This record gives sequence, C-alpha cells and structure tokens, in this order.
Amino acid sequence: TEPSSPAVKTAIPGPKSSTMKRDLNLIQNTDVVHFFVDYDRSMGNYIVDVDGNVLLDLFTQIASIPLGYNHPRIMKVLTDPVNLAAFANRPALGMYPPSEFAQILSETLLSVAPRGINQVQTMACGACSVEHALKGAFMAYRRRERGGSPPTQEEIETSLLNTPPGCPKLSVLSFKNAFHGRTMGALALSHTKWVHKLDFPSPCWPFATFPTLKYPLEEFADENNAEDARCLAEVQDKIASAKRAGQPVACVATEPMQCEGGDRYGSPNFFQGLQDICQENSIALLLDEVQTGAGASGKFWLHEHFYLRDPPNLVTFAKKMLTGGFYYTPDMRPTEGGRIFNTWTGDPSKVIMLKAVLDVIKEERLLDRTADTGIYMIEILMAAQNKYPNLLSNSRGLGSLAAVDLPDGESRDKIVGKLRSKGINVGVCGSRTMRLRSTLTLERKHIDIFADRLHAALKEM
Amino acid sequence: TEPSSPAVKTAIPGPKSSTMKRDLNLIQNTDVVHFFVDYDRSMGNYIVDVDGNVLLDLFTQIASIPLGYNHPRIMKVLTDPVNLAAFANRPALGMYPPSEFAQILSETLLSVAPRGINQVQTMACGACSVEHALKGAFMAYRRRERGGSPPTQEEIETSLLNTPPGCPKLSVLSFKNAFHGRTMGALALSHTKWVHKLDFPSPCWPFATFPTLKYPLEEFADENNAEDARCLAEVQDKIASAKRAGQPVACVATEPMQCEGGDRYGSPNFFQGLQDICQENSIALLLDEVQTGAGASGKFWLHEHFYLRDPPNLVTFAKKMLTGGFYYTPDMRPTEGGRIFNTWTGDPSKVIMLKAVLDVIKEERLLDRTADTGIYMIEILMAAQNKYPNLLSNSRGLGSLAAVDLPDGESRDKIVGKLRSKGINVGVCGSRTMRLRSTLTLERKHIDIFADRLHAALKEM
Ligand code: FES
Repeated sequence: TEPSSPAVKTAIPGPKSSTMKRDLNLIQNTDVVHFFVDYDRSMGNYIVDVDGNVLLDLFTQIASIPLGYNHPRIMKVLTDPVNLAAFANRPALGMYPPSEFAQILSETLLSVAPRGINQVQTMACGACSVEHALKGAFMAYRRRERGGSPPTQEEIETSLLNTPPGCPKLSVLSFKNAFHGRTMGALALSHTKWVHKLDFPSPCWPFATFPTLKYPLEEFADENNAEDARCLAEVQDKIASAKRAGQPVACVATEPMQCEGGDRYGSPNFFQGLQDICQENSIALLLDEVQTGAGASGKFWLHEHFYLRDPPNLVTFAKKMLTGGFYYTPDMRPTEGGRIFNTWTGDPSKVIMLKAVLDVIKEERLLDRTADTGIYMIEILMAAQNKYPNLLSNSRGLGSLAAVDLPDGESRDKIVGKLRSKGINVGVCGSRTMRLRSTLTLERKHIDIFADRLHAALKEM
Repeated sequence: TEPSSPAVKTAIPGPKSSTMKRDLNLIQNTDVVHFFVDYDRSMGNYIVDVDGNVLLDLFTQIASIPLGYNHPRIMKVLTDPVNLAAFANRPALGMYPPSEFAQILSETLLSVAPRGINQVQTMACGACSVEHALKGAFMAYRRRERGGSPPTQEEIETSLLNTPPGCPKLSVLSFKNAFHGRTMGALALSHTKWVHKLDFPSPCWPFATFPTLKYPLEEFADENNAEDARCLAEVQDKIASAKRAGQPVACVATEPMQCEGGDRYGSPNFFQGLQDICQENSIALLLDEVQTGAGASGKFWLHEHFYLRDPPNLVTFAKKMLTGGFYYTPDMRPTEGGRIFNTWTGDPSKVIMLKAVLDVIKEERLLDRTADTGIYMIEILMAAQNKYPNLLSNSRGLGSLAAVDLPDGESRDKIVGKLRSKGINVGVCGSRTMRLRSTLTLERKHIDIFADRLHAALKEM
C-alpha cells in the first residue's frame, strides 16, 4: 500500500544513488540522472529511491505513469497467464499481428479516440509517432497535388536519391518553444533548449510564435485576444512565405499546451483559428498530445477543451498511454501498404497494459477526479502565489498538469531542490517554470502534503 | 514443446486471418499483413496462425526473435516476481534509472560489447538507435572543429532556429541499397524501396555504391577485389565532393551486410578499407547491426568477421537484442547531459529479457550451433541451386542469415508463396531475393524439413 507521507533520511541523491551514478557514469553520460529508484518499493504516488527516501512524485517519470507505481491492476495484467505470450513474443506487428488485434485496438485506443476519429496506428514512442504522423500529412499533400494520378517514374527513382520530386521540398510549420521529440524530423519541430539541437543538422522548416498568455486570464482578456490574433496572422504569413520559398507547408504541428517550453497554454480561440487556417490552406493539423493526453487535463485529450469544429487530422500520443501511436482522419490514411511501417510499430504488451489503465480510469471516474484535484492544485498554488508574490507567478494548470513560474531559473532550481529534500519530487520546464505532472490517482490529501512542503520551502527562500 | 513438423490445413491467409484482416483494415492500412498469429500456440521455431496452420518460421518477425516463440527461459523471466516491478513501471531511464543499472548493463549489453568498447546507450528501436548514434558523431565532429572552445552564443541561438552555425550543414554518407530505419535521419540513409521514401522530404545527404560481390567468391576473387577498390574510391570521392559542397561528412553509416537491400555482403577487405578512409578523414564509422547482431552471423556481431583493426565508432542494435541501443567509442560520448536523451531511452524490462537470451546463448553455445547450421543451410541451398540453376543463384549466408536469388521478383514471390503453403515461412528482400532469418536455436533437423519443402516447391515452378 501507498505510504502516508514522504520520508527523507539522506541528502538526495543519497550515498547509494551517488555510488550507482559513479558506476553508471563509466558507461554513459549521467549528468541528468536525479537519483536511482527502488521500483520494487515505490508505490502509488510515492517514489522510493535506493537510499530509502520516500518522495511524493509530482513528476512521475516525465509525466508517463498513469495510475501510480506498481498499481494492483497493472500487476494483475502482468501475472495473468493469459497475457504471457504477448510479453514473450514481440511481433512485427504490421506483418504478423496477434489474434483479434482489431478488437484489441477497438477496446483500447479506439475507445478513447478523439471524437470523430476511427483510425489509429500504434508506434513505439513519442518521436516515431510524430515522424510517422508527418508522413501521413506528406502523402496526403502529394496525393492531392497528383489529383489521383500515380507517382511518376521520376518521382519513384528520385525518392531513392533523397532529391525532388521524389523527396519533395515540403515543410512542417511548428512553434517557438515547442517540443516534439529527438529524431531528426521531430527535432526540427522543437525549439526549446540548445542541448536538444546544437550540432545536429536540421531541415530548415519554418516556425511561428506561440501565444504568450497573461495571467490571470480574466484580467487580461483583451491583451490575450490580441496576442492570439497576432500569432495567427504570423502563422498565415509563414505559410505564405514558405510557399513562395518553394517549400510549402504540408502540416502545422503543435502541442495543445507547450510542455517543455514552459507550460504555455493556448486559448480555444487560438486553436480554433489555427484549424481554420489549416483547412483554408489544405494543410494537415497535427496535435501532439504525447504529454497532455491520456486524461492528464481532466478530459481524455487536452484539445477537447478547445471545442474544435472538426477533429484534428493527426493526434499523436505516448507516455501515459504506455504505447506510442497516432490517430488520424481518413484523408491521412496511406493508400499503399508498408508506408507507415517499421519492424515493431509498437508493442502489443503495452496495449494490454493500457487496457487495464483505461478500465481503471473508467471504473474509478479518474477524469472527474483529475479535473477536481487539478482545481484544488491551482487553489493551492494561487494561495502560495498570493502569499509570496515576489517568488511565484502565473499559477496555471488543468487536471494533473500544473505549473508556476519563479523569478528566474536559479530560484526555480533552488525551490525544486528544497522540495526534493522535503520529500516532494517535481519537474522543471521552460526557463523558470516549476512543472507538476501527477498521476491520475492523485488526491486532495496528496496536494495538502505538497502545500505544506511548498510553504516550508518558500519560507526558506 | 515445439511441433515436429509443419502442418497446413487451410490456404494462408486462412478464413480466420482474412476476417481479422478485414476488421483491422477498417482501422488502418493492412496491405502488408501476411496472416494473424496465435502467439499462445506458437512454439520454438514454429509459428501457428489463427487458422491453426503450423509453419516452420525462417523469417521470425523480420529477424527479431532470438530463441524462438515462448522460450521457457523467457517465460521464466516473465513469471519471476522479482522482475514484476521492471515490467510495471517503465522509467524515464536517463533521469530515474533503476537500482544497480550499471551492473545490469555490465551483465547484459557490455558483456557482449564489440571488442574494445565499454560505452553503451539504450534506446527503444532501431531507428532511434541510429538517429542518436549519428548525434554522437555530429557532436564529436563539431567538438573537434571547436578545438576545446565552448559553443558560441550564435551557435546556441541559431540551434533553436534550425539554421547554421547551430544546426550545421553536416552530412552522413550512406550506401545505395542500404536500409537504416524510417525516421527522418535514418530514412535519409536508406535507399531500398520507394514505398519507404516517396513524398517524404529528406536532407540531401550523399551516398556511394556498396560492392556487388560475384558468387561463388572463390571463382571471382579478382573481380570482387576490383569492385571493392572501385567502391572505396567512390567513397573517397563522395567525401571530398561533400566537403567542397559545404556539407562535410561527419559519419559513414553502413550495415555490415545489407539486408533489406538484398542480402548484399561486403568483404573484410572492403570494410577494413572503409575504416581506413574514415580514420584518415576523421569521420566516424557507424556499423548498423540492427538485423545482423545478437549472434545472427554465428559470431555475436557480424563485423567480427571483418577483423577490423579498431572498433567501429558506433554500433547500433535492436531486433533480436530485444532492446535498441548503440555502443560507442569514448570520442563519441556526449560531454553534456541531456543530449542523447528522450523520455524512455529504452525499457529496462527488455534488458532483463535480454539477460535470459544471453544466458541461453552462452549455456547452449548457440553461436557455435548457429555457425554450424548456417554452413548446413548453405549446403542445402547450393545443392538446390545446382539442381535448379535456372531458378536459383547466389546462395549466400552466415549463421542464421541466408539468402538465394530467383530470376526475378515474380518468381521469387511465387516460390515464397509455395513455401508458405507447404508450411515454411520465409521473407524477401532486394528485388529478387528470398531472405531466411532463423532463430539461434534452429537445428539441422529444421533445415532438412526446409530442404524437403524447397525441393517440392522448386519442382512445381
Ligand atoms: S523512434 Fe520511437 S521507439 Fe525508436
């Protein structure tokens, strides 16, 4: 059972973590290792490190643990002999799928598909989900350009040479402060930190400004509307200039809330406008819900909060979904086999684990609970912000996603360190943001513990 | 226990497979689905489809099943409560590694590292293994250019804009007929089929000709040496012209044997020469052993057959290794944290399964057995080739990797279909090659069954 409170016995990282880090550093760079984890003893919302320190985990493996550590329903999946073969024999899923795979997908991924979508492709991580989703958009763009004709011999031949017309000069429009992954295509859409990008060649694809909302939203409605309009105009500009430059935009890719970039929300108004622009220009809209999906926002997909008129063309997922993949509208579906393909294209054992996660979400009404705890979390953050206005600002969040800004990166890192030493594990993002990413099973009692430690930390600042 | 022989009851795909394919096709493109598999009943070297057909599997999920289906030692790992937490809680491995992760890596990946290498990075699939290995090469190249200075402010800033100098114009030299994966960077190194590449924008990186060996090798020694020399000269040319074009080559990437491209072997002479050229030009050499590693060739890494003077700078793996990842020489190691990174960077549960695979390989001396069965397989293929010289040519192979050419794609697909209907599952590659990829537990008795069905199929052609 879950511990009732954090318990810190050593500095973190403690002596055992430090020894293990020294050993691992002989094998690979370990500069970003926080501490080593005793995954056997971690339970629910608490992570236990190898020195026996018990921390309330509000970062949860970069937002990728849906129900908590060693959740009984996941354990049940793992110990049920019926599932053994799925774990023992990872298939080449695109060629040799397991029995009843359509039904498995229907009961899992399609049961939570964004409204209006009935197509889904599994993948293995967030990056390949984005890369292959882009392929859907590129193929759709070129199909439309060909107007029903098959590809020419020249296209077929030049495609093997990396040159046009087979490998066309198409681009994807992304946003400043976006993050979509680390493989070359996904990385070209990412603009957060130089450590992600420096020294790596990149296609020179365009990007536009993502709105910077001012908080509290009620107070700055006019400014925020103007910001939306300014950013949407820039999107149109960039689409037009990419076309003039001979590198037309086939897809606009964005997170529904920029996470790595500093928990930057966009308004429904902005996303509705973005969809309008995409539709007017016959450009695919990709919403990357890798970090925001799977109920994190209190709705299953964060973009449900936007009330878009039509489904986005492509919705990517991973992390808390346990499997990667993407949903797509029928126009994005490849018309030939083997185009969206690789050896594994995911892992059915992760889909089986997802089934348990979705069952628990439904049975325990975790979306409602997450929406509710999210509101409470913001109350707590606002109270702290009101008490320490020189330290905290821009408290914001939805469901299990919450964030607050510190004056600068240094003070942000300082409070994160203080929280850790008091038994609360949180993350960071952007240049000065503290990032909270809880499970869907977090309760008000956990937030009370967080509030207590937060105030203690703030007092020491 | 493993069936004693194939047993085919229906056409393949049979009625159940066809129904399931129709259902799955409502959700995604299923053009390359061969048949649906009953993974519970598949055992050892035999795959059982949902219609109850039992096939000797000589393709093994695109060469990704090391020991056979439902191997008892894998089942033991899965049912051992000690391993439960590793399966239940997938960590963000770069930040929160499990206890004793260095020791786990030492006992698994490092215990089979290419000679002279003691650095390894886990990844989740072949494509991200290649993509991140390339990053090691890019960083090393730029570090050398900087001569110890830190990156400039301009480099740091432009890296976020996808433009030089932060995202430099560097390239990777690959080879015609190569295949390295489906994400943008890995795909730019791939030149096999248009379905992999058409319509997808690509960096315009250079590639050279991979030698086409003539068989039997003893007979064509002079021609093959001349071919090696010609191809190596072309590599030098391409490196020089890329430099002149302002897009210098930071890395030469190649499979030690081109698989998708048609099971194209290169000689030790060629690879030794390639390493010389790389070293003379301070270019990293990446050997992509995703399909050829894990004992497939009868040695643990196929490139061990080349007797290279020094270890390759980067060696990528996936498939039969169960986890992706890459080995690297110390000069390829990132000097800052978070540069070779993503949320999961692999999955420790796959490393635990790999441990069992490596134990069995060692205990049962499977490398020796694989080398031996490989020799027998070539005898069988040569005998068939000698009997049917108008149908078969260029029998070639090493260990569990074997191939033979048919006159054209049509006859190749025909014999593959005939073999399937006789209970043998094989693969294809190149334009007219039949590709065999067995487990490491294949025995001579299995090859006798294959030989019997092969001759029956050839008789019908
Ligand atoms: S790129 Fe997604 S798992 Fe490798």
